[in-house]
Amino acid sequence: MRMYDIIHKKRIGQELSREEIRFFLQGYVEGTVPDYQASALLMAIFFQGMTQRETAALTLEMAASGDQADLSAIPGIKVDKHSTGGVGDKTSLVIGPIAAACGAKIAKMSGRGLGHTGGTVDKLESIPGLRTDLPREMFFKIVNETGLAMIGQSGNLCPADKKLYALRDVTATVESIPLIASSIMSKKLAAGADAILLDVKVGTGAFMKTPEDAEALAQEMVRIGCQVGRKTIALITDMDMPLGRNIGNSLEVLEACEVLRGRGDPRLRALCLELGAHMVYLAQEAETLETAREKARQAVDSGRAFQKFCQMAAAQGGDVSCLQEEKGLPLSQMRWEVKMPETGFLTRIDAEVCGLAAVELGAGRETKESEIDLGAGIVLLKNTGDYAQAGEPIAYLYAQNRGRCLRGEERLLSALQVGSKQPAPHPLVLKQIEA
Amino acid sequence: MRMYDIIHKKRIGQELSREEIRFFLQGYVEGTVPDYQASALLMAIFFQGMTQRETAALTLEMAASGDQADLSAIPGIKVDKHSTGGVGDKTSLVIGPIAAACGAKIAKMSGRGLGHTGGTVDKLESIPGLRTDLPREMFFKIVNETGLAMIGQSGNLCPADKKLYALRDVTATVESIPLIASSIMSKKLAAGADAILLDVKVGTGAFMKTPEDAEALAQEMVRIGCQVGRKTIALITDMDMPLGRNIGNSLEVLEACEVLRGRGDPRLRALCLELGAHMVYLAQEAETLETAREKARQAVDSGRAFQKFCQMAAAQGGDVSCLQEEKGLPLSQMRWEVKMPETGFLTRIDAEVCGLAAVELGAGRETKESEIDLGAGIVLLKNTGDYAQAGEPIAYLYAQNRGRCLRGEERLLSALQVGSKQPAPHPLVLKQIEA
Repeated sequence: MRMYDIIHKKRIGQELSREEIRFFLQGYVEGTVPDYQASALLMAIFFQGMTQRETAALTLEMAASGDQADLSAIPGIKVDKHSTGGVGDKTSLVIGPIAAACGAKIAKMSGRGLGHTGGTVDKLESIPGLRTDLPREMFFKIVNETGLAMIGQSGNLCPADKKLYALRDVTATVESIPLIASSIMSKKLAAGADAILLDVKVGTGAFMKTPEDAEALAQEMVRIGCQVGRKTIALITDMDMPLGRNIGNSLEVLEACEVLRGRGDPRLRALCLELGAHMVYLAQEAETLETAREKARQAVDSGRAFQKFCQMAAAQGGDVSCLQEEKGLPLSQMRWEVKMPETGFLTRIDAEVCGLAAVELGAGRETKESEIDLGAGIVLLKNTGDYAQAGEPIAYLYAQNRGRCLRGEERLLSALQVGSKQPAPHPLVLKQIEA
Repeated sequence: MRMYDIIHKKRIGQELSREEIRFFLQGYVEGTVPDYQASALLMAIFFQGMTQRETAALTLEMAASGDQADLSAIPGIKVDKHSTGGVGDKTSLVIGPIAAACGAKIAKMSGRGLGHTGGTVDKLESIPGLRTDLPREMFFKIVNETGLAMIGQSGNLCPADKKLYALRDVTATVESIPLIASSIMSKKLAAGADAILLDVKVGTGAFMKTPEDAEALAQEMVRIGCQVGRKTIALITDMDMPLGRNIGNSLEVLEACEVLRGRGDPRLRALCLELGAHMVYLAQEAETLETAREKARQAVDSGRAFQKFCQMAAAQGGDVSCLQEEKGLPLSQMRWEVKMPETGFLTRIDAEVCGLAAVELGAGRETKESEIDLGAGIVLLKNTGDYAQAGEPIAYLYAQNRGRCLRGEERLLSALQVGSKQPAPHPLVLKQIEA
């Protein structure tokens, strides 16, 4: 087998075999296939696409390229969830406890973030004492005892995907639906998921900017799940406006607790309940989605979901007193008030620009090595559709110093549009996609 | 400027500017643009094509990347000729002398071959004593005195093209018309041509297998010539059957001499006269192509063309007595007779397979480092369309040993098809393309 022939075959639009995909990926990881042949193939894939069989093969080979979690020590159907990422997206912190409270076993391995805020692991670490680098046995023990644990990913998860993604990033081959889909799905497979829930975000604050692209990606991932024998459901959800009120690490944990207590932003709460219900349904803890929705609602309303979260945090070493309302998590020392620039309705808050404001405040990483300020971020007092008088406070910014606050404020104000008419509400869940 | 943006721009089908093409090429030669970004761009170019302006810019930048011949010491219009390569193509050896005999100045720099036989430089070196590594001043002196000299290319001709071609060769991006066209044209520009004659071969023995591809390539090169201010004409000529009777280095020089003496294979002679007439016309030594054809014919018939070839060979140190019929050039020690396998018409002699037979005999290079046996090759006694009895000799093979002859014979026989009906003659010049 020669890499040249594989590139040529794809270039002329023929389907690659499982063996050819394996030859390419293994060779690329081992270094016998050079970068320049890999990037030529990636560009050919960009133009020619991949068949279902090819995408499934690529996904399985990438999953097999490194550590693969063996979750057999945890009985039952292990459901994992992936969000394609959005501004203020703290749903993982909420829906895991909801599903666990309904009887599901959630053994979640998450990454750190490179973006507007940290990833789930960073957010969790804003709880003093909480550890995400638990040994495997302890991880299993916590899941079996409390139904729920969340740790960091193995450093050797899908090394083929990691190496390939770094190459795509510098060769303008990121924006290929089959490559994005197999990259995401390979990590879920390697993390040991039996069933997978996908939250595909669409809008200015998301990777997918149009509903068409989001749907294409969702379809592709559901197809892969089907091909590799993992029940997979995707929800396409709005990310044109920030999700909830808080953006930042500690701030998002606090908001997650609010929702788990049955309060908080109604839109965020609605999405968490819907995603949580899907987790319950996929874990086969409810026979229908409708029953699952009811169970999820009860889990929150009864306080059991919040209790699960606290149990998990405590088991992972966290200081649970910080999750109580009266104490709270430490925030950055400077609080800055942002005022409404003119009287009217907030007709638009650009989610992506809000995310950039959070980075200015120190809540996100600019490079892999950047330190995050876990206490930094934004609390939106008003969101898209709300009315305010000129000069009325519309947000609090948290950061280490005045300079960051000033830069954050400038960005945040640039994200706003004010008008005289209340805008129509954004639909939250645009579509559900299932095989 | 960032290479990422250049790849992305081409990927989405936008036109690259001259500055972007320069940034890419200079960076690639200097090593600041890595192979993997270059190959991604090449694959994007394969799919998106290039505009006329882009192709012209790429050609000029590649020409400017290394040594550029300054032929101003030679008065008049310098015409260069390029053949896309075929089996038994010795026309350069014939048409240079024809054009010089008609008053044109031919300062030709040629390459060595990697293929069925050597290149023009290898063929010339089969004349004992003849040097192709002449110093610049001597080269100019011979051209000015005799009208004609042929030397080897500078090692630093179009290094950008050389590096890019090596990359295309291993990333399945060779077969791109704009990339092939700019590669050829850049070398002609760097070699100092004022006007360019292109012989674009089509058929099994050629790089372009279909008339459509050959025409697309010819059109592209003529367009580039036009864009960069070099009068360019392309002829699309047949390469389904070997050109002439001899394949091999010494053997092709001998056949070229035959044609220069007004004899030889009529098809080869016709093509040489047609190409020669175009050289004369492009050099403005005739006002019309018809006059040029008449002049070319007279140059051959009068013996002046052959005389020019001998003058050039002598000036370059060659033993001209070898070019006389009674002496001849040294050939490989073993001569092997190939017999007609069955009675009938040769309905087809596959040119490409003949070329492979020549390589088996030792006439071509298998790798850049291979030594060529200049005396090896094939003399076809019969060509496509001829009739022969079973057992009648149809070819002589020349090689160093019996093993090579046996392998060459096997190949040559596999190139033949015999039938009971005489095939229709192949048209020789399929099309002329001019701006």
